[in-house]
Amino acid sequence: SYNSPCAACKFLRRKCLPDCIYAPYFPPEEPQKFASVHKIFGAGNVSKLLRELLPHQREDAVSSLAYEAEARVRDPVYGCVGAITFLQRQVERLQKELDAANADLIR
Amino acid sequence: SYNSPCAACKFLRRKCLPDCIYAPYFPPEEPQKFASVHKIFGAGNVSKLLRELLPHQREDAVSSLAYEAEARVRDPVYGCVGAITFLQRQVERLQKELDAANADLIR
Repeated sequence: SYNSPCAACKFLRRKCLPDCIYAPYFPPEEPQKFASVHKIFGAGNVSKLLRELLPHQREDAVSSLAYEAEARVRDPVYGCVGAITFLQRQVERLQKELDAANADLIR
Repeated sequence: SYNSPCAACKFLRRKCLPDCIYAPYFPPEEPQKFASVHKIFGAGNVSKLLRELLPHQREDAVSSLAYEAEARVRDPVYGCVGAITFLQRQVERLQKELDAANADLIR
């Protein structure tokens, strides 16, 4: 309902006020999103980071924080840096294949 | 010297004991590494995460945490997810170019 607290306030067991910094980005239907972000970054760090941004930047910031947090929950050793390593290798492999194909085309 | 505290204990102004969880991964010569990780994840979250891992996994975990933290300090909106988006586009572009080159080779 209109008055149900956001996922962050529900998790932190506090009253969700009209100016809640979390509410626009952590709807009650997605409780896992806040739980992951809280586990990895801590609620205080998240609200501090959001306050330091302009309002129009906050949705993208929460999306990227949630992505990083979920990757770290799944893979506590590498987190989303595992995806970066994988993609860098894929780029190297494709670039080599492309160079070889272009060399064949010139021949 | 042998007795100088690790970068984490120096930052947190506490005595660096022989069993310090941070010391193997945060040498005093790299103060910025701990400062970034502390700012983004919080010292408590980092030590909790390290304790949940096997000792041989901790160095890689600290490297990936430091990478994520430094990316988030540089780019508070996208952090290292900006690198993932960039690499994904590069993979798509290279795959298209490779498909086109291979089509030309068959012709």
